[in-house]
Amino acid sequence: MRSVLEKIARAEGVDTSFLEEKIRQNRVVVPLNGARKNIERPVAIGEGLTVKVNANIGGSPDITDIVKELKKLRAAVEYGADTVMDLSIGDNWKEVLSAVLENSAVPVGTVPVYAAICRTGSPEELVADDFLDVIRKQGEMGVDFMTIHSGVTRKVIDIYDKKGRTGGIVSRGGKLLYRWMKKNCKENPLYERFDDILDIAREFNITLSLGDGLRPGCIEDASDDPQFAELYELGELTARCRDRKVGVMIEGPGHVPLDKIEENVRKEKEICKGAPFYVLGPLATDVGAGHDHITGAIGGALAAWKGADFLCYLTPAEHLHLPEVEDVYRGVVATKIAAHCADVARGNPRALEADLVMSKARRSLDWSGMEKHAMDPKLVKDAREKYPVKKEKTCTMCGEYCALAD
Amino acid sequence: MRSVLEKIARAEGVDTSFLEEKIRQNRVVVPLNGARKNIERPVAIGEGLTVKVNANIGGSPDITDIVKELKKLRAAVEYGADTVMDLSIGDNWKEVLSAVLENSAVPVGTVPVYAAICRTGSPEELVADDFLDVIRKQGEMGVDFMTIHSGVTRKVIDIYDKKGRTGGIVSRGGKLLYRWMKKNCKENPLYERFDDILDIAREFNITLSLGDGLRPGCIEDASDDPQFAELYELGELTARCRDRKVGVMIEGPGHVPLDKIEENVRKEKEICKGAPFYVLGPLATDVGAGHDHITGAIGGALAAWKGADFLCYLTPAEHLHLPEVEDVYRGVVATKIAAHCADVARGNPRALEADLVMSKARRSLDWSGMEKHAMDPKLVKDAREKYPVKKEKTCTMCGEYCALAD
Repeated sequence: MRSVLEKIARAEGVDTSFLEEKIRQNRVVVPLNGARKNIERPVAIGEGLTVKVNANIGGSPDITDIVKELKKLRAAVEYGADTVMDLSIGDNWKEVLSAVLENSAVPVGTVPVYAAICRTGSPEELVADDFLDVIRKQGEMGVDFMTIHSGVTRKVIDIYDKKGRTGGIVSRGGKLLYRWMKKNCKENPLYERFDDILDIAREFNITLSLGDGLRPGCIEDASDDPQFAELYELGELTARCRDRKVGVMIEGPGHVPLDKIEENVRKEKEICKGAPFYVLGPLATDVGAGHDHITGAIGGALAAWKGADFLCYLTPAEHLHLPEVEDVYRGVVATKIAAHCADVARGNPRALEADLVMSKARRSLDWSGMEKHAMDPKLVKDAREKYPVKKEKTCTMCGEYCALAD
Repeated sequence: MRSVLEKIARAEGVDTSFLEEKIRQNRVVVPLNGARKNIERPVAIGEGLTVKVNANIGGSPDITDIVKELKKLRAAVEYGADTVMDLSIGDNWKEVLSAVLENSAVPVGTVPVYAAICRTGSPEELVADDFLDVIRKQGEMGVDFMTIHSGVTRKVIDIYDKKGRTGGIVSRGGKLLYRWMKKNCKENPLYERFDDILDIAREFNITLSLGDGLRPGCIEDASDDPQFAELYELGELTARCRDRKVGVMIEGPGHVPLDKIEENVRKEKEICKGAPFYVLGPLATDVGAGHDHITGAIGGALAAWKGADFLCYLTPAEHLHLPEVEDVYRGVVATKIAAHCADVARGNPRALEADLVMSKARRSLDWSGMEKHAMDPKLVKDAREKYPVKKEKTCTMCGEYCALAD
């Protein structure tokens, strides 16, 4: 672990002792299963570090194609995703996950309830041990972090049932547990058996990412009672993770208007005592389908500037279909840009330096420098080749009247 | 004018009297040349109204293709640009501008110095009357608003020369005037002859958009002395516009980190006494080349939420090449999303309603409703056709496990 921390510290430009101190304070997590010794790009997530980006991959019941999922993995890692989550929800989840773990240079996360579903014909027939078995199995396989929806308690769904909502429950895991609890008239097994989950997490050094099953799925529902009721549950579960020395981060929404994003970050940090905050987007409007990598980048940049630590990407396919490789690429780059904008605004020295060297290259019309320092070097190179110029150092935008040509 | 204001008020969902009052207070402008009676989508820009989006089109010395520029115009207007600016800088500027004016359903803006350049072999040989002649000529042609870089005064460029800068001058108009002033050892003719410009603006009812020739072109230069020295000059020029009853808005940067965007908006509103603020992006990092429609959407959403009134789009081609039609489309949609996110955060009732109807359609898996209410209906439709589903109302993302299918 020491050499992993040194590697991370070097990449972040911080002292290893700083990293260790933050981990001790539970403000930083390092998702790294004990079985995954040779991970190429280990990562730390949390306070005082650069903002990280996760890319979701994985098949669905409608489309499963292991070759394509590995292409998505490669695209995500190539364009700078810090972690990937394999959200496969088909019968072949084990095969896909094995291949992803084998080929991933970065930490891999899962949502174990998706795999649990395959154990029965209908999700409502699952028993608590089905969930636990899958968590253990995926721990053995080497999964570094797992989304666990333990905060969807009866108390929380009672509030949801009473208050109602425009967008309903949009979390796949949250809705599955909601249905299960209503059908079986029982408490959430992931809540009831949380101590057992902690045992497994400790055994394999799995970081828990406490899911927000009641996250708002539209602007109208943002910051409503069910959302925050669940967040309070997550605050209590966070304390239990820490008591057992299990790394924990907290998942956040979802659909949130710009004026409520800072409040969301502040509440998470307060209620969960500084646990790293992992947000999905957030999407600052509901109408962006087809361009939700952009909508998510808008919300994500603001969230991360205000203290969110980890951005789950959205792709142009969000709300429409299972992402293609191209969608993964676009989603990663958009979210990396959002994370980087936040790093710049937070005054991260490496982020500022990255912008500075790019700007110096631009000032001197040094195109190979611009290519090298851009977030997406290949695109800069391709554009340069595709649009030949009349005057060597300028571009076709202004030609000889380039403001920088002097 | 009355019927135009009524049309705008209906589109905005405000009273005509509210609009008239805001115009009287100089907090709202309606760019509309007296010669352009039949404009299909007139627009008002400023306080209390929805955030507007401008799309730049036009050829360059390297590429001039009038057919393509008209395609860009159509794409921009189809996807919801509220105005277009024809930034053509080649010898055929008059031909392109005529065609754009003839075909544009929305207000058209220009930067007259670009056309003035063509009057001589070298920009430094221009005389003051060249600039004035072009402004008059474009006024006669029907241009609704013009970027005028009158704030690039000797005082401002002295500060620039003394302080220096990482990114230099990145405004094409600003740099041209800078070179002219250094070569001719004279004051900026657009400043010296500002009263004559006001006469022409009044004659044709041209709205002046006071350009920011010294805008920062990189994060490192954001909020530096030259930038704000020019803004103070623009504040004085704004007062002169108002004295002469000429509509005026103020252009803003450029490259600005997230933590300085609010300050930029606040300063503009203070120094220019509430004049509408028209920002380019802003870009919240320098490294996004190839994806700068996204970088600009991130900064633009925040700027507009904090009070900017008018967002100039950026396209994926920014910093790389003259935009193609596809780039225009992507730039407009990204910037419309940013503007809409700001409208939602500002609590604009129509924006909130748009999100609500979209969310209700999504909740009930009503795909034709989602298509209708999305920012980009065609893309939703295409995605739906391209990715057939096994279970009718779901999509390939979650298939039968769709959280909303119940």
